[in-house]
Amino acid sequence: LAEKAHAIKAVLVCHNETATGVTSDVRAVRQILDDLGHPALLFVDGVSSIGSLDFRMEEWGVDVAVSGSQKGFMMPTGLCIVGVSLKALEACSTSRFPTGYFSFQDMMKMNDQGYFPYTPAATLLRGLRASIDMLHSEGLANVVSRHNRLASGVRAAVDAWGLKNCALAQKWHSDTVTAIVVPENFDANDVISAAYQNYGMSLGGGLGKVAGKVFRIGHLGWLNETMVLRALGGVEMAMRDACIPFQAGSGVGAAVEYYTDTRQPLSLAAE
Amino acid sequence: LAEKAHAIKAVLVCHNETATGVTSDVRAVRQILDDLGHPALLFVDGVSSIGSLDFRMEEWGVDVAVSGSQKGFMMPTGLCIVGVSLKALEACSTSRFPTGYFSFQDMMKMNDQGYFPYTPAATLLRGLRASIDMLHSEGLANVVSRHNRLASGVRAAVDAWGLKNCALAQKWHSDTVTAIVVPENFDANDVISAAYQNYGMSLGGGLGKVAGKVFRIGHLGWLNETMVLRALGGVEMAMRDACIPFQAGSGVGAAVEYYTDTRQPLSLAAE
Amino acid sequence: LAEKAHAIKAVLVCHNETATGVTSDVRAVRQILDDLGHPALLFVDGVSSIGSLDFRMEEWGVDVAVSGSQKGFMMPTGLCIVGVSLKALEACSTSRFPTGYFSFQDMMKMNDQGYFPYTPAATLLRGLRASIDMLHSEGLANVVSRHNRLASGVRAAVDAWGLKNCALAQKWHSDTVTAIVVPENFDANDVISAAYQNYGMSLGGGLGKVAGKVFRIGHLGWLNETMVLRALGGVEMAMRDACIPFQAGSGVGAAVEYYTDTRQPLSLAAE
Amino acid sequence: LAEKAHAIKAVLVCHNETATGVTSDVRAVRQILDDLGHPALLFVDGVSSIGSLDFRMEEWGVDVAVSGSQKGFMMPTGLCIVGVSLKALEACSTSRFPTGYFSFQDMMKMNDQGYFPYTPAATLLRGLRASIDMLHSEGLANVVSRHNRLASGVRAAVDAWGLKNCALAQKWHSDTVTAIVVPENFDANDVISAAYQNYGMSLGGGLGKVAGKVFRIGHLGWLNETMVLRALGGVEMAMRDACIPFQAGSGVGAAVEYYTDTRQPLSLAAE
Repeated sequence: LAEKAHAIKAVLVCHNETATGVTSDVRAVRQILDDLGHPALLFVDGVSSIGSLDFRMEEWGVDVAVSGSQKGFMMPTGLCIVGVSLKALEACSTSRFPTGYFSFQDMMKMNDQGYFPYTPAATLLRGLRASIDMLHSEGLANVVSRHNRLASGVRAAVDAWGLKNCALAQKWHSDTVTAIVVPENFDANDVISAAYQNYGMSLGGGLGKVAGKVFRIGHLGWLNETMVLRALGGVEMAMRDACIPFQAGSGVGAAVEYYTDTRQPLSLAAE
Repeated sequence: LAEKAHAIKAVLVCHNETATGVTSDVRAVRQILDDLGHPALLFVDGVSSIGSLDFRMEEWGVDVAVSGSQKGFMMPTGLCIVGVSLKALEACSTSRFPTGYFSFQDMMKMNDQGYFPYTPAATLLRGLRASIDMLHSEGLANVVSRHNRLASGVRAAVDAWGLKNCALAQKWHSDTVTAIVVPENFDANDVISAAYQNYGMSLGGGLGKVAGKVFRIGHLGWLNETMVLRALGGVEMAMRDACIPFQAGSGVGAAVEYYTDTRQPLSLAAE
Repeated sequence: LAEKAHAIKAVLVCHNETATGVTSDVRAVRQILDDLGHPALLFVDGVSSIGSLDFRMEEWGVDVAVSGSQKGFMMPTGLCIVGVSLKALEACSTSRFPTGYFSFQDMMKMNDQGYFPYTPAATLLRGLRASIDMLHSEGLANVVSRHNRLASGVRAAVDAWGLKNCALAQKWHSDTVTAIVVPENFDANDVISAAYQNYGMSLGGGLGKVAGKVFRIGHLGWLNETMVLRALGGVEMAMRDACIPFQAGSGVGAAVEYYTDTRQPLSLAAE
Repeated sequence: LAEKAHAIKAVLVCHNETATGVTSDVRAVRQILDDLGHPALLFVDGVSSIGSLDFRMEEWGVDVAVSGSQKGFMMPTGLCIVGVSLKALEACSTSRFPTGYFSFQDMMKMNDQGYFPYTPAATLLRGLRASIDMLHSEGLANVVSRHNRLASGVRAAVDAWGLKNCALAQKWHSDTVTAIVVPENFDANDVISAAYQNYGMSLGGGLGKVAGKVFRIGHLGWLNETMVLRALGGVEMAMRDACIPFQAGSGVGAAVEYYTDTRQPLSLAAE
């Protein structure tokens, strides 16, 4: 990386890549930039990570982070949620890129007076208030470990089915979505189609290079063990309809074992 | 049955006994009364059957049938739904039993004018309108066969777990609720408690003679295959927590096999 | 009242008579019974009063009070709310009146264990929890004085229209409903019909002796000044459609004057 | 207007100016452009007009029209609704203005396949489906004439109060919002504040040159006569609290007279 001229103004990292179920190491990217003494801003796409995975804007030196209402915030689609550093605000103020849609300056000026620079999506903002209260009520650390626990059950099921996670190394395995590779000569879209047509369940598909090769199970937000088991059971039915060979019940059984083996005894303080 | 004096005025049959998961043969009871030439009225408790199981008020000669809003009608609790025959209405008109709560006469008189004899539960009545539309949209015969299909998957799971249905003979097996007998020396309440405390899932308990010996899975109303698999997965986790021996995944796997093996190909006319 | 034999077991007072807008003096009835040394129980129909008007079960010596969810409790219809004294419970335990619908004994026994003797209307009970929280949050004394203030505006409008309140003496004027007498040779049902057909507004009608002579405006529950003005404005339109002579705007204007003349300055402590 | 060089690429007309209650003549602007042979595109801000006032995109030669979900479409805020002409699409395709937020090309390409180029606000889109069904069910011509009828009642009230509409000429009077000028030496913000603080009612304020001089009543969307009377009654209370001199009830009375005098007899075909 001989980017000595510092022509690159910003590096964008996708914290959690939805189509392949890969979680990236944002902190490490920051470290590289720092090691190189590179002034580029660090932008993070946190749509499918913020509110579910560990994310530390200040500690990791993130300059702009973007998320949406419809993933970890457990709401309908409609809101874009943006975090911005002072450094990015400064860069913004000297930008000569013409833009009409959004201005941090307008937003901050009006927000300071309790207003919005335009008509706000009030119903969604109230929903966001409720969702943030829910996250804080559970505790962010607990939210993150719940997502890890639920995802680990899904990964145990994938192993039991004899299938592969699209993300090769364990350290990249996403705790919010798992992309599962179907065996050679099978079409992942047959699984997705059977799930939707026969059982009313929506699975994600692969995009680009992995189209037809993977199907995805999302597991984030307002979610508990039995909801995951429902999804795994639905996947088992869809895989059977798509003639993919595996032992029926093996995946759900592996998740059942994982969840019961790792359950924490309720503390005395728990309700 | 030498009830020759005909002192018995009415015979009440519970069409579907919730606590044990037993469905009775209402038509056969009518047949016995007819064979004996007995004039008793036939009353049916159809709370957990009407709207889910085959029920034929006129064909079976039922005089009074009672149901509720919260089972097959898929609504919140709050409404009692009553069907009545002309014969029962006549008996009612000569009854000298003092009663203040409900009068078929008042109800019919006011209903004829588009009114109620007292303030009606309007929100629930509108819900009932919607739920009846849903039942007719699916078709009552389809609703009944869907309940049989879903219940058969639950029974396949019970067999795979190596457990027994509380209803001994297959012909009594209820398609709306299954009571499952835990092995000797285990307490069914441990399963129920683990399901609720550890996984937020409500199972039913046994009453009277079967208290502590059975737990119940309800499977009626707005329900499909993946919802059943969720319940079965939750039961598997709760049984493991209660140390009941069985192969994790075996029950869900049996249901998955049943549902996929018996799935009807979508007809050309289906959406 | 030479009821010396004490054959009368209970006296039922309708606290607030909806059809005529008359509020009765429950405390005075208690006083008469006490003065006579009469052991009769005091029953109160508080359907359109409890939660809106001043009602003091213990202080007034009421033995049974009945209300519903759909008036002062601001909920859908569906719940009957009953208060009962120890004296009434004792009378109940010696009653030989056959009854199948409701038993205080069953209810108390199961409630003590956190249960209901039958399937409870859970959604409505949760609504009741919320409505009671709302009443306590406003403060019962404030709720009662708000109803008096809003009703006084309605009565100012009736005066301004040159019409009469069905309840003759001021002391009987109900703070939850006002029945208004139309002039001779006019049919109150024309007003009711015009309000409903032309402006989508439901007014109450007179019953029995006052049928066709009065129409009613309900003013209780979740209600503020502008909601009352909306109703008064709708009544003005409907009275004009029914050709009842009055000065358009006079009633609303009188209420506007009453509400602004009597408004309390916001205290420093108010939000 | 000697814009002979045709440097102006587009003319933006605000169809209905919310802050002053002025409706512009979009068709006339088109006519001027056509008379001049000017190729500029015609853009229309229809936020507070489309779905309430007469608007004819093709007939008036509008190239881009913008609206929102929260006015005539009777929904929460959150959706921007855009109509575009082929001429504008062509201009778009040759534009070199850098833009990242929205692309007609991406939208059309994906919409053709039944998809969105990004995650759509599905709940709001379903609401839009319902709101458009409501508009068509009433009939657009009826919707427009209902808004004119309701606004005429508001204007009758303003006259009766002895106040002035901010829009001087009658032909500019908006049927969706009325800005009312308070007398000299009064502050319109006192009316707005009293309405909100004392009666929980939100009025609009003046902006820029008319700040403190006008308050606004919005009257569009899901609205009928009694709702307008509620707003007028609330304004009367707030104006009294702000010590503005007028006859209480005069405005509501004028609207009551207008609505009853101009009511169409229900046709035989009406429900």
